[in-house]
Amino acid sequence: MGLPETQGSTALLTDHYELTMLGSALADGTGDRPCVFEVFARRLPDGRRYGVVAGTGRVLDAIADFRFTDAEITQLAQTAVVDDATLAWLADYEFSGDIEGYPEGELYFPGSPVLTVRGSFNEAVVLETLILSILNHDSAIASAAARMSSAASNRPIIEMGSRRTQEYSAVAAARAAYLAGFAATSNLEAGRRYGIPTRGTVAHAFMLLHDSEEDAFRAQVEKMGTDTTLLVDTYDITQGIETAVRVAGPELGAIRIDSGDVGVLARKAREQLDSLGARDTRIVVSGDLDEHAIAALRAEPVDAYGVGTSVVTGSGAPTAGMVYKLVEVDGRPVAKRSENKASRGGQKTAFRRHKPTGTALEEVVHSSQVEVELGQYDRALQIPLMRSGQPAEDLPSLDDARERLRHCLVSLPWEGLKLSKGEPAIPTVFLEEEK
Amino acid sequence: MGLPETQGSTALLTDHYELTMLGSALADGTGDRPCVFEVFARRLPDGRRYGVVAGTGRVLDAIADFRFTDAEITQLAQTAVVDDATLAWLADYEFSGDIEGYPEGELYFPGSPVLTVRGSFNEAVVLETLILSILNHDSAIASAAARMSSAASNRPIIEMGSRRTQEYSAVAAARAAYLAGFAATSNLEAGRRYGIPTRGTVAHAFMLLHDSEEDAFRAQVEKMGTDTTLLVDTYDITQGIETAVRVAGPELGAIRIDSGDVGVLARKAREQLDSLGARDTRIVVSGDLDEHAIAALRAEPVDAYGVGTSVVTGSGAPTAGMVYKLVEVDGRPVAKRSENKASRGGQKTAFRRHKPTGTALEEVVHSSQVEVELGQYDRALQIPLMRSGQPAEDLPSLDDARERLRHCLVSLPWEGLKLSKGEPAIPTVFLEEEK
Repeated sequence: MGLPETQGSTALLTDHYELTMLGSALADGTGDRPCVFEVFARRLPDGRRYGVVAGTGRVLDAIADFRFTDAEITQLAQTAVVDDATLAWLADYEFSGDIEGYPEGELYFPGSPVLTVRGSFNEAVVLETLILSILNHDSAIASAAARMSSAASNRPIIEMGSRRTQEYSAVAAARAAYLAGFAATSNLEAGRRYGIPTRGTVAHAFMLLHDSEEDAFRAQVEKMGTDTTLLVDTYDITQGIETAVRVAGPELGAIRIDSGDVGVLARKAREQLDSLGARDTRIVVSGDLDEHAIAALRAEPVDAYGVGTSVVTGSGAPTAGMVYKLVEVDGRPVAKRSENKASRGGQKTAFRRHKPTGTALEEVVHSSQVEVELGQYDRALQIPLMRSGQPAEDLPSLDDARERLRHCLVSLPWEGLKLSKGEPAIPTVFLEEEK
Repeated sequence: MGLPETQGSTALLTDHYELTMLGSALADGTGDRPCVFEVFARRLPDGRRYGVVAGTGRVLDAIADFRFTDAEITQLAQTAVVDDATLAWLADYEFSGDIEGYPEGELYFPGSPVLTVRGSFNEAVVLETLILSILNHDSAIASAAARMSSAASNRPIIEMGSRRTQEYSAVAAARAAYLAGFAATSNLEAGRRYGIPTRGTVAHAFMLLHDSEEDAFRAQVEKMGTDTTLLVDTYDITQGIETAVRVAGPELGAIRIDSGDVGVLARKAREQLDSLGARDTRIVVSGDLDEHAIAALRAEPVDAYGVGTSVVTGSGAPTAGMVYKLVEVDGRPVAKRSENKASRGGQKTAFRRHKPTGTALEEVVHSSQVEVELGQYDRALQIPLMRSGQPAEDLPSLDDARERLRHCLVSLPWEGLKLSKGEPAIPTVFLEEEK
């Protein structure tokens, strides 16, 4: 699941009310009751046809780092968030329960039980915010990125949106985009933490630093070799391409166009490059691309895309809207009846039904208390992630998640891959228990 | 500017191309040229009438932590991002230039020079991503939060969106929302880092944990006293309020309603509370509120709002779209001529013109080479933030920023505070240099 994150304790990445609930539940003894919490999304973002689960690996790392050291205890004591008995309990905190869930790269639909946390109320309730923050962010990015990967077909996309999102979100976004099929990221910390390939050459600032475009190209080729990417749109693009090939020769690796109508410009650039003998020089385009722009460029001679703002902001859906709900207490289902927000009680199991051809038919969610025999074309969706507080064995890697998503997308009905707004690609069917 | 963040070096929160540019600029000697980079937004998010500068304090902390220790150098060496000469230079990196900019809480408009970084190309170019990540995120959140604060008028808003954004974004978002007038946050780490008041009582899970609503209320009141907030919408709200007042007495602090048509429900709840003698019991509403929903609740008997998703996602504008552009090299203005993205060369100075009544008239941006005498109702907008790599003296605190924003919003023409889409509240005027 990548290298461990070394930002110290994650224990205060938590909402105040989780600790006050803990305080009350410790005091009246109800906090020892065995509970089940489930993470699910009531709906997909407006018009999206599928969601992509991402962040589970980061959740497991963050739970391992969820410890109240002296620093956290002192802070809580000074601000009187909870009383001494609660602080004493927190000082010994170590999650000892079980977790299972959809592996990263799996698709999800409304109601899919993406993550299930079992433990005492006390130990499970304090993880709500941390788990949701990670899953909601990472899944939102991966869901948007998957649409882009799918629109780009086999052309590589480089994630370069770090500057458009919070500095640590940028690292997580790079991971989620890579999971969803992006080829590389610009973010160096994502390279360090997760082993994701990083890429980059120059910005316009490098061009402007030099006395002429030619000087800048020469400096870059001198240092980085001819198999580099020259940025040709600082001044006049046609002139830029001519200079680029003159400086680097026809073996120039690539040119990048970052502004204007990139489709038209790519076509003209291809003709010009070919006429200059630079037939193998690739064309990279960037600049406010999203999945729709990428799809519109399908017929153009583009070799790679650079995508920034749209992917790190979830392309209109910056959060996945997942919730963490208490569904079982002492083995009995519980559910609230609030208007608009009613929930289904009881721990749930999920599988996906497919046609014999492999095309997905429906997401089936049922009470875990009911034994359901899976048919030949059914696939169970949950895997063990943590047992008695320890990470399960053979957890899937980030590359496994990439691979899984690729397979899952192929299994969607063809309408499921349309970029236009629509219904979820497959319905979620809740098998109701006998009453 | 709050307590230092202790997440270690920020040096790899950087795009790959900044280091490759550095490598080339070191090799050909151009990297020593004195440069000026400026941060500005080409436009405000669609229909927004003003932007709020936030994150500057975090930027200064992050620059202080921008050091390439052995861990960073080893990583860069192993992945061959740059050569040994560049690594040696990075190992000694310490920003030694000057920075000035708009203080936090100041308004900005298209073209406002929000931050100006002066130093050699080498030392300034590597800060691009880190500076933009922070300013783009924090300013987006503060800009949305200011609209909410303004819609809420004097009613307090509690920020409770941590679970809807990446776990560290949540901490920064809490800070930005507080800067923009929110009263408190649910995020405990924001309490620790920035001294922001934190709040919270219970979630629906606490209600469901107990055998009855009454049991849950009793446990909470027992532990937290009668001046707490009881969550009354888990089952039937009318019944919930009746039970709440029966358990806590008419001195009950507050009730919270988190679902349904909160306006109608608040009115009914007020009547019921009054009829039960709980005339001082406050009503807190939450659940998918944004600035428009808050405005629509103005006439309802609501005492406080809880706001989550909309504020941490910038209410439709999750990034501020600021850019970091090289505008001066060796004292000469530079600018690219790319289509759609042409920029203005030269370091800039900005002031805001006001009517004698104090109402803002226009944002004036001019070349720093031109001396402009400020009129009686003009106000200079930039302050020194860093001198020779050291933080300037008397930097404004987070509370100063809150105060500044409050004053700035009062100075806007009244159309500027409308929530509907429109033009920037005041125009930006560029005083052109004599050619």
